[in-house]
Amino acid sequence: MERVYKLYNIELEEAIGLILNSIEAIEDVEVIDLQDALGRILAEDFYAPVDNPPFDRSPLDGFALRSVDTANASEDKPVKFKVIDRVYAGSPSSKSLGSFEAIRIMTGGKIPAGADCVIRLEDCEVVGDGVIIKNKLEAFQNYCFQGEDIKRGNLLLEKGTKLNAIHLGVLGSMGQARVKAFRKPRVGILVTGDEIIDYTEPLLDGKIYDTNGILLASRLRELGFEVIKIDGQGDCPKAVAQAIKENMDALDLLITTGGVSVGDKDILHEVIDLIGGKRLFWRVRLKPGTPAMYTIFKDKPILSLSGNPFAALATFELLCRPLLAKLSKDTTIKTKRVKAIMLDDFNKKSKNRRFIRCIYKDGRVGLPKGGHSSGMLLSMKDCNALIDIEAGNMGLKKNDIVDVVIL
Amino acid sequence: MERVYKLYNIELEEAIGLILNSIEAIEDVEVIDLQDALGRILAEDFYAPVDNPPFDRSPLDGFALRSVDTANASEDKPVKFKVIDRVYAGSPSSKSLGSFEAIRIMTGGKIPAGADCVIRLEDCEVVGDGVIIKNKLEAFQNYCFQGEDIKRGNLLLEKGTKLNAIHLGVLGSMGQARVKAFRKPRVGILVTGDEIIDYTEPLLDGKIYDTNGILLASRLRELGFEVIKIDGQGDCPKAVAQAIKENMDALDLLITTGGVSVGDKDILHEVIDLIGGKRLFWRVRLKPGTPAMYTIFKDKPILSLSGNPFAALATFELLCRPLLAKLSKDTTIKTKRVKAIMLDDFNKKSKNRRFIRCIYKDGRVGLPKGGHSSGMLLSMKDCNALIDIEAGNMGLKKNDIVDVVIL
Repeated sequence: MERVYKLYNIELEEAIGLILNSIEAIEDVEVIDLQDALGRILAEDFYAPVDNPPFDRSPLDGFALRSVDTANASEDKPVKFKVIDRVYAGSPSSKSLGSFEAIRIMTGGKIPAGADCVIRLEDCEVVGDGVIIKNKLEAFQNYCFQGEDIKRGNLLLEKGTKLNAIHLGVLGSMGQARVKAFRKPRVGILVTGDEIIDYTEPLLDGKIYDTNGILLASRLRELGFEVIKIDGQGDCPKAVAQAIKENMDALDLLITTGGVSVGDKDILHEVIDLIGGKRLFWRVRLKPGTPAMYTIFKDKPILSLSGNPFAALATFELLCRPLLAKLSKDTTIKTKRVKAIMLDDFNKKSKNRRFIRCIYKDGRVGLPKGGHSSGMLLSMKDCNALIDIEAGNMGLKKNDIVDVVIL
Repeated sequence: MERVYKLYNIELEEAIGLILNSIEAIEDVEVIDLQDALGRILAEDFYAPVDNPPFDRSPLDGFALRSVDTANASEDKPVKFKVIDRVYAGSPSSKSLGSFEAIRIMTGGKIPAGADCVIRLEDCEVVGDGVIIKNKLEAFQNYCFQGEDIKRGNLLLEKGTKLNAIHLGVLGSMGQARVKAFRKPRVGILVTGDEIIDYTEPLLDGKIYDTNGILLASRLRELGFEVIKIDGQGDCPKAVAQAIKENMDALDLLITTGGVSVGDKDILHEVIDLIGGKRLFWRVRLKPGTPAMYTIFKDKPILSLSGNPFAALATFELLCRPLLAKLSKDTTIKTKRVKAIMLDDFNKKSKNRRFIRCIYKDGRVGLPKGGHSSGMLLSMKDCNALIDIEAGNMGLKKNDIVDVVIL
């Protein structure tokens, strides 16, 4: 059977462009409790609903009074005020100050009605129920105005902000118990292959344990996404097609692994026929993970990756992160690239564009101990980046400057 | 009442030393499901329980056979083999190969008994139920040995590893459904102050919304910790003492905010008397957050921070992260320091050592728009680091090299 792929054997950048053109960001908005909002994407511009501080307050310990009553106060002509009340932070006075009256006030206390300044405790002399002042005070001396830090109505956080602890602190200080956030993408993972056994089961002869399911699910969780594991359907195209049909409505993206190459157990091609998916591309000009395939089904993306664990991981980083960044509006998870200096030689020729695992630190990259084969994951455990080697490269030397994709 | 502090008005580094000397890492071990293990600290050296691959397998599509039977094969003298079975990945053959027999085998298929090599499909001629070979093959040509990637018994992950997606993939590939991890610290947060209103409540006259509770809880969650919010007890020393007594058994660390300065509403001193806590230090020579206090109660740490949000955050980063790193054995959350070049002037003199908020990027630091006052949190929203300014500094100039603490 002849299958039509819009594009076959394309460049990585073209594949990313096709992916980004085929999807829209999720616009659904959820109202969530502030304590659950860490890492979520704010769905509205947030304007301050109140002033902060919410009232005029004292910046220090002392006495609140009327500056006009101190106009003639001096060392030689001290003025006595009657102390009529005491104000703590959180406990304002119900009294209004009259002429030559003062109210004892603590840091953070609300300035009482009638007062327009505060004199520092150390600058006064307390005598019985009174206080003696020997300085002239200006209006609003030692006086914090309502809204001095944050003015009601000011734009505090922009739509699209990824909420961190500071943002939640600011929202809390504004009395926001809930916040509007974009719904997170729900990502399904479906691992194909008759040889795959879930790690909770005993290993049978000729089978291997599933690596990709837990690897990609954990990577998605690291990036902040919800993961729905769709139980493996082995190598039966009808069962896999049925599982996709049943689950796709609940998903924003499905990632499959395995079955995308050219052997007669490479069932994903038949699966896409069975569900009637629209193929956008198959095969990307890079190693590992060449057979990556991309399909739209029910207006949603299905990204099908190679079954080799390192290949699945590398193509997840290269193809899926830009996709997830657009879906979720979380720009922080876009693939990041830097230039770096090689600390080691890599003596292999690269007929095709190739991505190899490496350890990036402070502008330098080293290669891990252990193998680079696409089925080997263990040597990846110390790695945090991929070197992007162009097609036709004859090998990399120490001190070469290379392009690096940060994971 | 005279209170005894072992140390008063000490340097930051001395405070950190006292904290680290006063606590032990949590040694409790939990057995957890692999899918819940992301970010946890591995509590044992993990040795491979099985080989990977778990059996001898074919690296390519072709025919498995006995190399000895090809000894005389050539273009001129082709040798015919009888094809007796077919092996897919995951479906091994139950047959044993005899002389001049071959078994069709796919990539990842288990090498059948009797075979010691694989010939590539493209190098054969398939005729009816047979296959014609024209090449001499070596023993173990195109042959992947059991344990080639991972040998059973090899040390794969060291005790103390913080488990990421790659580690979980490796553990999954070894058939580990569960993993031993150190218990995470449980951190309590107790916000004091009569002026504090929870952000879920209406704002009353003279009160302000709680910022520190949600700020520190979210910061702890960002760092991967479980947080237990202990409901605010206002400014009543007995109620706060009671809340600490009731909750301390369930906690590994308590963080309090507010009430640690010298005013008559600075109740934490009395609280520590009431619970009979052992004071280790009070007041650290830095701004903001000078009045930080540290107590041991029921052999567990209580870190008491200033109530000003920026002060609470800065001293959390400086004092609490080293504490949490030791408790949890998670070395990745230790405070990180770098040198950086100033992009702006900072014209204030610093009588005491001072930490100011800044934006760090690629070896450079800029200052945010907005205020640096310790009560102001908003201008922190674009910041990711603190500049450490030494006591007696007369102001920083553009292009100065400064010490920076990365958040």
